[in-house]
Amino acid sequence: MVLKLAKRARNAFLSLADLSTKQKNRILYSMSKKLLDNWRFIVRENKKDLLKARGKYSSAFIDRLALSKNRIREMSESQKALIDLSDPIGEIIKQWRSPTGLLIQKIRVPIGVIAIIYESRPDVTSDCIGLCLKSGNCVILRGGSEAINSNKAIYKVLSSVLTDYSVPEGVIGFVSKTHRKEVRELLRLNNYIDLVIPRGGEGLIREVSRISRIPVIKHYKGICHVYVHQDANLLMAEDVCFNAKVQRPGTCNAMETMLVDKKISSLFLPRMISRFQKAGVEVRGCALTRKIVKGVFPADEQDFRTEYLDLILSVKVVKDLNEAINHINEYGSHHSDAIITANIKAAVEFLRRVDSACVYQNASTRLTDGYQFGMGAEMGISTDRLHARGPMALEELTTYKYVIYGKGHIRK
Amino acid sequence: MVLKLAKRARNAFLSLADLSTKQKNRILYSMSKKLLDNWRFIVRENKKDLLKARGKYSSAFIDRLALSKNRIREMSESQKALIDLSDPIGEIIKQWRSPTGLLIQKIRVPIGVIAIIYESRPDVTSDCIGLCLKSGNCVILRGGSEAINSNKAIYKVLSSVLTDYSVPEGVIGFVSKTHRKEVRELLRLNNYIDLVIPRGGEGLIREVSRISRIPVIKHYKGICHVYVHQDANLLMAEDVCFNAKVQRPGTCNAMETMLVDKKISSLFLPRMISRFQKAGVEVRGCALTRKIVKGVFPADEQDFRTEYLDLILSVKVVKDLNEAINHINEYGSHHSDAIITANIKAAVEFLRRVDSACVYQNASTRLTDGYQFGMGAEMGISTDRLHARGPMALEELTTYKYVIYGKGHIRK
Repeated sequence: MVLKLAKRARNAFLSLADLSTKQKNRILYSMSKKLLDNWRFIVRENKKDLLKARGKYSSAFIDRLALSKNRIREMSESQKALIDLSDPIGEIIKQWRSPTGLLIQKIRVPIGVIAIIYESRPDVTSDCIGLCLKSGNCVILRGGSEAINSNKAIYKVLSSVLTDYSVPEGVIGFVSKTHRKEVRELLRLNNYIDLVIPRGGEGLIREVSRISRIPVIKHYKGICHVYVHQDANLLMAEDVCFNAKVQRPGTCNAMETMLVDKKISSLFLPRMISRFQKAGVEVRGCALTRKIVKGVFPADEQDFRTEYLDLILSVKVVKDLNEAINHINEYGSHHSDAIITANIKAAVEFLRRVDSACVYQNASTRLTDGYQFGMGAEMGISTDRLHARGPMALEELTTYKYVIYGKGHIRK
Repeated sequence: MVLKLAKRARNAFLSLADLSTKQKNRILYSMSKKLLDNWRFIVRENKKDLLKARGKYSSAFIDRLALSKNRIREMSESQKALIDLSDPIGEIIKQWRSPTGLLIQKIRVPIGVIAIIYESRPDVTSDCIGLCLKSGNCVILRGGSEAINSNKAIYKVLSSVLTDYSVPEGVIGFVSKTHRKEVRELLRLNNYIDLVIPRGGEGLIREVSRISRIPVIKHYKGICHVYVHQDANLLMAEDVCFNAKVQRPGTCNAMETMLVDKKISSLFLPRMISRFQKAGVEVRGCALTRKIVKGVFPADEQDFRTEYLDLILSVKVVKDLNEAINHINEYGSHHSDAIITANIKAAVEFLRRVDSACVYQNASTRLTDGYQFGMGAEMGISTDRLHARGPMALEELTTYKYVIYGKGHIRK
C-alpha cells in the first residue's frame, strides 16, 4: 500500500515539476477556498479525534488538536499566502562561462518526493501540502493516530482540487493506516522517496533517523543561549532575555540558558531575576549567581544540557566572551544563540565563533522563524548541517540542475 | 580507536574553521612542497602495495595504484592549485532586511567533519586532504587495504605539516586498520561526523549507504545519453557522440546509450556506427537500428539499463523528442544527458524536462567534471539530489549559518 503511494508519487513528479507558476497558484487558490467551504466537514471529523483524546491527553495537547472554523480560516489563509511568494523553481542561481566557453547555468528545481512524518497538529497536513505544491514536490503524508480523522478530512478536501486541474492525484499521498509498520516500510523506499522530514518530538525524530534509508532533515531541540556581554545596554538585555524565555517557552527557539558577564553580573542579575520570578520562571543558577541573588535554585551540569521547554531557566556567570562562546559550543544544540552588546568587535567574534544555525547580536532567539525572517512560510527549523540549516521555507525544498549550452564542445 | 579519531576531529573543527585564508594557503603550499620532497619515501611505501597486488589484480587496477615521481609531482601540483581558488568560507551568500528591520546575512561556513571511504587510488588521499583543508573541514580517511602503505605514507607526509603550523593534528584523521569492522564503527558515529562520501565502485557505495547513520553523498553510476535530434548538425553530432563514448569509456560521464531521431536515422546511423566500429566499439541496436545498419548486435531491455564502462554502446531510434525525454527519464541514472540540435525550442524542452544533474545542448556528456566546469577542483560527481548535485568542488563542501543583527528586536 505504502509502496503503491510512493510509486504513484514518483510517476507524478515530472508532471508536477513541469507546472507553471500560474497553474500552481490557481490550485493553491482553489485549495484555500475549498478548505473554508468545507469547514463543517473538517470540524465534524475533528470531533471524532477529540472524543478519542479526551481524558487521555493534556489540555495543551487537546488544544493543539482542536479545529474550529477560525483555525480552518487560518489554514485557508496560509494556503492563499503562498500565492504571493515568488516561485523558487526555474530561478537561475548562477551562471558562468567555463574556461572552454560553455555557458553553464545552475537552475533551481524541485527535490522530488518528500515524505512528512508528523504528530498531533492537523494543520501540518495543509501546510505541508501547500509548501510542497508551490515548490513542485510530491508529498507523502503520514500523521499520527491521534489526528487521523482530521488529517484524512483535510487531505480529502485538498486532494479533490487536483482532479479539477487534471493534475495526477499521486502528487499528494496520504498513509491512512497509522501503525508503525507503515512508517518502517515507508522509510525503506529510497528508490522512490528523496527526503523525509519528521515533524514532532525528539523521540519521533530519533526513531525516524535511526531506521530511515532515505535522507532525513531533522528538526531537533534547541538549547538556546543569550549572553549578556559587559558592554551590553542592560535595559535592552533585560527585554531581550525576558522575551527569549517567557514569550513562548515551549518552542525550540526559546532561551534555556542565560550567560552573564561577571563584570556586570551584580548590576544586571538582581533586577533581571526578580523580573523572571515575578513572571513565574523558576531560575536555576551557578554558584556565583546564587551568591549575587538569594533564593535561586542551584543549577547542575545536567541543567545546562537540558531543553526545558518550560518556565525554567539556567543562569551562569562567565568571566569573559571566550568562556561564553566555549560554553555555548559545548553545551548548546547549535540552534540559535545571541549576544547582547554594543561592542561590535565582541559581537563579530561571537557571531563568527559560535557554531549555530542562527547567531544574533542584540535580538531575541525567538526570532528564528521563517515568517520572522521574511521567508513567508516555514516547514520547520533544521538542526542539520547538510542541505538546509535553520528556518526551512520554499527555497530549502529545492535542489538544482546544471543546464549547459555548447557549440559542439567535446572533452579533449 | 575510530571513536578517538572522530572525537579528535570534532574538537579540532572549530580551530580549523577559524583559520584565515592566508594560513590555509600557507599550509597547502607546505604540503605541496613536502609531497615532492618526500617522493622517494612515498614511492618506496607504494612498492609494498604493488608487490602485494601483483598477480591478484588487473593491469588497469595496478596502473591506478602505482605511484611514480611524476604522479607525485601531479599530486603536489593539485595541492598548489588549490591556493589560487577563492576561499568559499565567509562568503555572504545573500543578505536582506526582515520585515521588522533585522539585518540577516546568510554566510558560508564549513560542514564540519567529513569521512571519506575510498578504494585503490592513493592520490585520493592527498586530494581529499587538500579539498577539506581549503574548505575548512576536518577529514577522516579510510582507504582500501590494497593501497594502505601508500595512503599511510601520503598521510604521514601531509599531516606532519600541521604541527609546523600549530594546527591540531585532529584536522586530518587516518584509519590505519582496514577491516570492515572499522568502517561499520565509523558509520555509526553520527554525533561526531557530519558527512560521509564513499568514493569507489557501486558495491562500496551501496554498502556504505545501507549501514550509515551519518548522511551520505553518493557518487553512483552514470547511464548517460546523447540524443541526436532531427534538427542536429550531423557532423557535430557525430563528433560529440564519438567523444562521449570513446574518449574515456570507463568513466561515469561516458555515453552508454545513443538515441537517434527516426527522421534522420538512415542518414546518420551508417556513418556513425561505422566510425564507432572502426574504433573497436561493440554496437548493440534496437530493431530499427539493425534494419538500417547490418552487423549490429541486438540490444535488449537490460542493455538500456546497463552502465557498460567499456567500449560497448546501445543505440535506439526514437520517433520524436518526447520519446527521447521519456526514455532518458525512465532508463537513465539522472547523471548527464545531451541533445544535439540547432532547434532552440526543442533544446529548451529537453533541458527542462530531462531530470538529470547535468543536461547539455550540443556538447559531450564527458564534460561533467569540476575542472571542465571551471570549479578548479573536484571531490566527485554527486548523483544525489540533496545538498550537492553534479560536480562537487569547494563550495559543495560547505554549509551556511545565519548571522542576524538587531537593535533589541524581540518577538511580539
